[in-house]
Amino acid sequence: MADQVLVTEVVLRDGFQDEPLVVPTHEKLRLARALVDAGLTSLEVGSFVAPGKVPQLADTDELVSTLEPGTPATLHTLVFNERGARRAIAAGARSVRFVVSASEGHSVANAGVGTDAALDRLAAAASLLTSAGVALEACIATAFVCPFDGDTDPGRVVAIASRLIGLGARVIHLADTIGAANPSRIRRTVKAVQGLDRPLGLHAHNTYGLAAANVWEALNLGVRRFDSSLGGIGGCPFAPGAAGNAGTDDLVNLFHREGLATGIDVVKLAEIRTQVGITVGHRLESALSAIPAVPAALR
Amino acid sequence: MADQVLVTEVVLRDGFQDEPLVVPTHEKLRLARALVDAGLTSLEVGSFVAPGKVPQLADTDELVSTLEPGTPATLHTLVFNERGARRAIAAGARSVRFVVSASEGHSVANAGVGTDAALDRLAAAASLLTSAGVALEACIATAFVCPFDGDTDPGRVVAIASRLIGLGARVIHLADTIGAANPSRIRRTVKAVQGLDRPLGLHAHNTYGLAAANVWEALNLGVRRFDSSLGGIGGCPFAPGAAGNAGTDDLVNLFHREGLATGIDVVKLAEIRTQVGITVGHRLESALSAIPAVPAALR
Repeated sequence: MADQVLVTEVVLRDGFQDEPLVVPTHEKLRLARALVDAGLTSLEVGSFVAPGKVPQLADTDELVSTLEPGTPATLHTLVFNERGARRAIAAGARSVRFVVSASEGHSVANAGVGTDAALDRLAAAASLLTSAGVALEACIATAFVCPFDGDTDPGRVVAIASRLIGLGARVIHLADTIGAANPSRIRRTVKAVQGLDRPLGLHAHNTYGLAAANVWEALNLGVRRFDSSLGGIGGCPFAPGAAGNAGTDDLVNLFHREGLATGIDVVKLAEIRTQVGITVGHRLESALSAIPAVPAALR
Repeated sequence: MADQVLVTEVVLRDGFQDEPLVVPTHEKLRLARALVDAGLTSLEVGSFVAPGKVPQLADTDELVSTLEPGTPATLHTLVFNERGARRAIAAGARSVRFVVSASEGHSVANAGVGTDAALDRLAAAASLLTSAGVALEACIATAFVCPFDGDTDPGRVVAIASRLIGLGARVIHLADTIGAANPSRIRRTVKAVQGLDRPLGLHAHNTYGLAAANVWEALNLGVRRFDSSLGGIGGCPFAPGAAGNAGTDDLVNLFHREGLATGIDVVKLAEIRTQVGITVGHRLESALSAIPAVPAALR
């Protein structure tokens, strides 16, 4: 087992998109900088989706243009179409994630069109971004289970991943959008997509309490890239039953206990989590956020 | 992988011992009967500990004497000493669990004496119970991590398990009392104790969000007996940092999604969970207790 894990913090995007309030831009900037100071080297900061559709992320352009110069971390944003690609380039984005749903039901609910059409309209976006020197990654939503269509066929995920690689994606992230995957399902799909020989990431949610089990299974298969949200907040507004992301605090604890390095300072992370709780104004979802103090013998 | 898992529901003991209120005996009896009606075949209903020490479990004698005749399930109770053994026999108990802490620190806090002395005083209890035809099982607390002493040496757990088998224990349960174990630690200790060739069980807590990952690891090692508490309530009053048990609802979901049979009716289980929430009067800890409804495609 290699000893390094790359954690991408998605609280600014997946976390805040599911909150009723719109977090002010200056708060997001402060949070992003604090996360980088705590050792995070990869942040998902927003989405170039129509501002009217997800008002919580309407300031993505400003976040990227403010943070991109000089922030020592990879800043990811989501892009769904050519319009989003143009906004990303204009803002000075250097890394973009395409998002496509593996299931028809979620693709229609989330992107307004089926999976094939969603992939088709990424072609122009891919050309623009590649020409502008922007790095491409891809995230396959509902890669394991869909709230509308049920379990997702791994062969379908491989076919979609293959098309995304054809568009220039260097990394494929598999998302358990509603947190309903179980370890055997993770194993089947990860092994199938590993046949494409590209770096893989897992984006886990903890709806059914299985995020850690699913991440552990992926670790055992060699996956070393994980998305998570500090305090475990987040969810997809267009996927009924979606609940919190895997908590960054909980996953980092798992990684460190397993002897895997993340570069993240857990004391600083806990301080930032407290601030996130104040910002969103409700109980957080991660297990660690409920622990008043870790016993001395375990520190 | 065999296809049957034995779930022991511990809400009546581990769950309620951590609640500030004392649940009335008639409520406990109704809950026990409802659990059996939902398909549970193994319940931990109380502890023959000094009633003054854990008032929440002071009615254990009455629960056992009322339920034992005619209830089609194995009813477990905890016994720490000869006095407890006499109470168990008088109440008509047919199955008893000895509890010993693997770590000195927790043994002193929980049982008032170190591990060796705690084992010594079980000898008389074992003779009494065996002569009375009561089945013996054993639970090793802090088998992975202790809040006072830190990580527990697997060799120590093997030595304690060996002594408990010598006393007549037919099954050894390994308890992650404060929920601080991680999958690799589960693996090391389970594999070490498997050398004794006795049926093993895992008693997981979810303090750090790792219960499902630890249970999944144990499943992969062939463990097929798991303790859990409906709604994930529970904890040890004598172990700082202990929090909720693995939720029965969450584990049963994991087992069923993995194709393992439990015999448990999840619809009835959810109804009983609602009642447990009303009884304890606070938010439950399991992931499933926070989900308003499982999407149709996943039922």
